[in-house]
Amino acid sequence: MEITRKEVFLIKELEDYLAKEFGIHFNNPDLLAEAFTQASYVNEHPHQGLKYYERIEFLGDAVLQLFVSEYIYKRFPELPQGKLTRLRAAMVCEDSFSKFAKECHFDQYIRLGHGEEMAGARQRASLLCDIFEAFIGALYLDQGRDAVEKFIHRVIFPKLDMGWFDHAVDAKTSLQEFLQRNGDVDIEYHLLSEAGTENDPQFKVSVSVNGEPIAQGIGSSKKHAEMQAAQAALNQLRKNN
Amino acid sequence: MEITRKEVFLIKELEDYLAKEFGIHFNNPDLLAEAFTQASYVNEHPHQGLKYYERIEFLGDAVLQLFVSEYIYKRFPELPQGKLTRLRAAMVCEDSFSKFAKECHFDQYIRLGHGEEMAGARQRASLLCDIFEAFIGALYLDQGRDAVEKFIHRVIFPKLDMGWFDHAVDAKTSLQEFLQRNGDVDIEYHLLSEAGTENDPQFKVSVSVNGEPIAQGIGSSKKHAEMQAAQAALNQLRKNN
Repeated sequence: MEITRKEVFLIKELEDYLAKEFGIHFNNPDLLAEAFTQASYVNEHPHQGLKYYERIEFLGDAVLQLFVSEYIYKRFPELPQGKLTRLRAAMVCEDSFSKFAKECHFDQYIRLGHGEEMAGARQRASLLCDIFEAFIGALYLDQGRDAVEKFIHRVIFPKLDMGWFDHAVDAKTSLQEFLQRNGDVDIEYHLLSEAGTENDPQFKVSVSVNGEPIAQGIGSSKKHAEMQAAQAALNQLRKNN
Repeated sequence: MEITRKEVFLIKELEDYLAKEFGIHFNNPDLLAEAFTQASYVNEHPHQGLKYYERIEFLGDAVLQLFVSEYIYKRFPELPQGKLTRLRAAMVCEDSFSKFAKECHFDQYIRLGHGEEMAGARQRASLLCDIFEAFIGALYLDQGRDAVEKFIHRVIFPKLDMGWFDHAVDAKTSLQEFLQRNGDVDIEYHLLSEAGTENDPQFKVSVSVNGEPIAQGIGSSKKHAEMQAAQAALNQLRKNN
């Protein structure tokens, strides 16, 4: 199969897009082409000496693993290993990487074989995730670690404050980390009332920040009510942010 | 429990050992102490404000994952992703890290609680592996990536040439990588004879490097015979190296 005019210009378009949108200028566009090319495309163009993304994705995966680890290790100095591991797993996974790839419009620049295209691979989460990792691998090789850090500080880390990964960390921890981004604050939970029956108790709790109550929560245990209060506070704070 | 004189001096001894043996001088010895302290020890000394290694191990694990990935990615430019992944898994695992920790005498410097000490934790592979990762995490934070690269170029990567990870990569690939460290060489396999019966065939193959036969192999298929020849060649080359 001939490489069509459109496909030749796809990587050039990607270069222009990365320059305009992210200020990224690749020294070696072949690395970029490799990161955005699936094996199915190489198989359809056997004599072009093309490479596909798998090796570079192997590297990019490890780059992301370290940089995300380092960021959350430093940002959450009190978070124990178990919670760090859960948070990293929520950030470094197919679900989030495929969303980042879509958000960066990477789906538009993938070079796919005809069959894969017809089968809808372009919107498949696993492929989008692979391409995101491969792009990071190419960026790391071509531009070094600072360029990767800059990119993921823009694309990945803001999602922490937007609550994308809250499910991995309990709401009380999330609230604490959210509020303590800019220094120490005093967070307290107060039991307001205890109602219901012995078999169906209902606790009402308020959470206050530096002495000022900001939200309430209700639950079947004190702990559950505190979690609800923390989640309510988080939702409110994020809306106002 | 009081911290005994011996335990106070253990980290100081470790600092001296690292300086003498590896030329590593920690700016912040507290990081080093953290990396070599197990939770059981902190529990026995609750009022000393001590930290244990788990968080720093979380980081060190990701550091090792990336640096090993980057090394094998660059060193084996023809190895496909699947084999890279298998090789990395063989290198980045409890079995190899615990051996590296022993080789570096790290077992002597771990601060353990009394119960763990009595239970033989000091020689437990999982603990030795954790300590190795934690040390790398501390080195990365305190001394930066160059210091880590220097250390693992001395401790980990030479094991590739010594055949520690051969089981993860087939012998033909290993032989090729071994011989091509210093540039391209021409490796060829020749069928010398085919004997045995139809149900029990026996192939004899020779492997030659730049035209010169260096080893032979026998197997029940041509491929198996080639693997045997490659392994024989590797064993011989490593003995002479």
